[in-house]
Amino acid sequence: MTHEFAFEMAASSVRFGPGVTGEVGMDLVDHGVRRALVVTDATVARLAPMHTVLAALEAQGIVAVIYDRVRVEPTDVSFRDAIQFAGEHEVDGLVAVGGGSVIDTAKAVNLYTTYPPSDFLDYVNAPIGKAMPVPGPLKPLFAIPTTAGTGSETTGVSIFDLTALHAKTGIASRRLKPTLGLLDPENTRTMPPEVAASSGLDILSHAVESFTAIPYSSRLRPDRPALRPAYQGSNPISDVWSLQALRLVAAYLVRAVEDPSDDEARAQMILAASYAGVGFGNAGVHLPHGMSYPVSGNVKDYRAPGYASDHALVPHGVSVILNAPAVFRFTASASPARHLQAAEALGATVAGVVAADAGRVLADRITWFMERLRVPNGLSAVGYSAADIPALVEGTLPQHRVTKLSPRAAGPDDLAALFEDAMTAW
Amino acid sequence: MTHEFAFEMAASSVRFGPGVTGEVGMDLVDHGVRRALVVTDATVARLAPMHTVLAALEAQGIVAVIYDRVRVEPTDVSFRDAIQFAGEHEVDGLVAVGGGSVIDTAKAVNLYTTYPPSDFLDYVNAPIGKAMPVPGPLKPLFAIPTTAGTGSETTGVSIFDLTALHAKTGIASRRLKPTLGLLDPENTRTMPPEVAASSGLDILSHAVESFTAIPYSSRLRPDRPALRPAYQGSNPISDVWSLQALRLVAAYLVRAVEDPSDDEARAQMILAASYAGVGFGNAGVHLPHGMSYPVSGNVKDYRAPGYASDHALVPHGVSVILNAPAVFRFTASASPARHLQAAEALGATVAGVVAADAGRVLADRITWFMERLRVPNGLSAVGYSAADIPALVEGTLPQHRVTKLSPRAAGPDDLAALFEDAMTAW
Repeated sequence: MTHEFAFEMAASSVRFGPGVTGEVGMDLVDHGVRRALVVTDATVARLAPMHTVLAALEAQGIVAVIYDRVRVEPTDVSFRDAIQFAGEHEVDGLVAVGGGSVIDTAKAVNLYTTYPPSDFLDYVNAPIGKAMPVPGPLKPLFAIPTTAGTGSETTGVSIFDLTALHAKTGIASRRLKPTLGLLDPENTRTMPPEVAASSGLDILSHAVESFTAIPYSSRLRPDRPALRPAYQGSNPISDVWSLQALRLVAAYLVRAVEDPSDDEARAQMILAASYAGVGFGNAGVHLPHGMSYPVSGNVKDYRAPGYASDHALVPHGVSVILNAPAVFRFTASASPARHLQAAEALGATVAGVVAADAGRVLADRITWFMERLRVPNGLSAVGYSAADIPALVEGTLPQHRVTKLSPRAAGPDDLAALFEDAMTAW
Repeated sequence: MTHEFAFEMAASSVRFGPGVTGEVGMDLVDHGVRRALVVTDATVARLAPMHTVLAALEAQGIVAVIYDRVRVEPTDVSFRDAIQFAGEHEVDGLVAVGGGSVIDTAKAVNLYTTYPPSDFLDYVNAPIGKAMPVPGPLKPLFAIPTTAGTGSETTGVSIFDLTALHAKTGIASRRLKPTLGLLDPENTRTMPPEVAASSGLDILSHAVESFTAIPYSSRLRPDRPALRPAYQGSNPISDVWSLQALRLVAAYLVRAVEDPSDDEARAQMILAASYAGVGFGNAGVHLPHGMSYPVSGNVKDYRAPGYASDHALVPHGVSVILNAPAVFRFTASASPARHLQAAEALGATVAGVVAADAGRVLADRITWFMERLRVPNGLSAVGYSAADIPALVEGTLPQHRVTKLSPRAAGPDDLAALFEDAMTAW
């Protein structure tokens, strides 16, 4: 096999505007939908965006079948519950109203009810699952994010926690991608500050990870174009999206968290989430995300402020960003100029910084955001200690699909050192 | 009706890499195609990209039905010829190999053979045609550009000359958009310098026009989201792509024209064409394009160097750029900061320039490229004189679909003055 010589930019369609949520009923009609499954969680079910969606469906005479039991940080168990519910109700389209957990659950429901697999793991990423391709087009799915974070409305990825392994895995196929993402800054007005911070830092890490991922041309070339992965490494098009997302994060993240009534900041952050989503959706993420999965999966009794959840939980964005400074100090030597470009887009002063300091400068800038936004000060603040490192390393190793995109390879000893470094952030 | 409050970013999928043309056979197989119509023109039919395509199809056992009679600057007559040919051959997919004329012809063939209208003008833009919506999905269409220019591989627009009216019009629908654009810098290696210059200046104007088009929020709001036009005015996402295209044009256009063996420059220009295509495909163009249509349509006996054509012809990119400096001198007062941003992205020095000079600075920068790339020095150099201005104005007025996006409205007297100003460029 020779090295990769091409990259692909796969389509994502989004519509942005304050109030676009109200259009979803007409969108469903125009896609021939008469009965829609509306997927949400117990918290969002009571909020304004859900009321807007239900009114929009009613106005167009569309029957809404509501599933409101999505689990924050979903699992195979919670996915199965949603799939079973959907199987009991005939629908011809879906609307997801919520954060990444909701949108990811809706993607899985769409796939598993349209083309039921013989085994739950058939579609799940290898090596945990069989990574079988999605056989054909799915039902129309309209994604309405209520956080500015995951960018799930633009991607073909659905992430969940496989309970038996205490590890995150997922399903990845361009066919999972929502028909349209409706980006409505009215819908993020009610985010608690902790949710705004966590999801905003997820955007930040998506963008830095995709920008610093190995170049697409350093992967091996697949036998046929359809086998080219969505996570193909950094490339000129994903770079444009990722850098633009970082500039918006630099200008608007703190404002959006500290003043939920700042309409401009909320609008720019919901755009930033989608920009970063298109970026990482076509380039990939690497170590901060790969290491975040066991951090979320092995949570003991940490309860996240701002999250209405009945279980211990490290929010996804927190579990990612806690690893990020340590990772970028480690990876910068592989591509110092790119790490500095990312730091500069995030607002750091980089004039005169030598290559050897690139990792420190980027890590310091990220840490500045973490401290200012009051996320927990390192893995120790969410309940981990040195004794947990072997389990965290063990949980990262199967995340090869993303960790292999790191610009600097990290073996078990490296990962242990990174988790050690991530115990305290500042 | 209230003003528009939303914008939409519609999907375009592209794959970039030197040699990706060779993958198209596998792409067709993966889309279930067994017999493909290969659309091209008499010149490209004899060039390397066409041989690569035919070999790729043969290797996968796909029957290639070749149509090689596309007219450069196509007309309703040439469209009908292609549609009739296609109707006589059963195919289940299309491959377009050529410039914008070829790709636009393939889009029309795909539409007219999949959903034959009762009248040729049914799908054509109003007011010339009935602008009827495309009824459903079309056949898979893979677009392989052999020029770096129109960006047609990313858009849902097909432009042609309506012979009876001596005016360009077109068909616009997101369903016309190619399934995938294959961006292969090997395919632009054989462009004559005049073709590289004309098509490159088309990119430049696409990007400046979409960046300076009225903001989406100054249009009226449509009754339903499906009626939101593709040409919706400038918006934050199209801005990103337009500016990035301008930066690439500034860095690589002259290199690509002056040295066809400059692989890096050719690669960056084929990316720039698609970036600008995504930009204007979601924002629109305005006066330079609207005014170009009668310039092309009323051509007398001008023969374009570098174009193997059996008819008098002002190449599309030339007919656009000849109007551009006059237009931007006229429109700059509506948004001087945007005009200066465009000039800066094109490499002009803008520090200290006052708003009143924005139009001149942008126009001067564009004129610099025109002179350096040896395009004809104004409309007079392609055969027009003051006596033609009434006909040129008359031919521009029906182009309301694009001219209404101008940041400064231009009535008949304004258009006459603009054409007068465009008679000589430097």
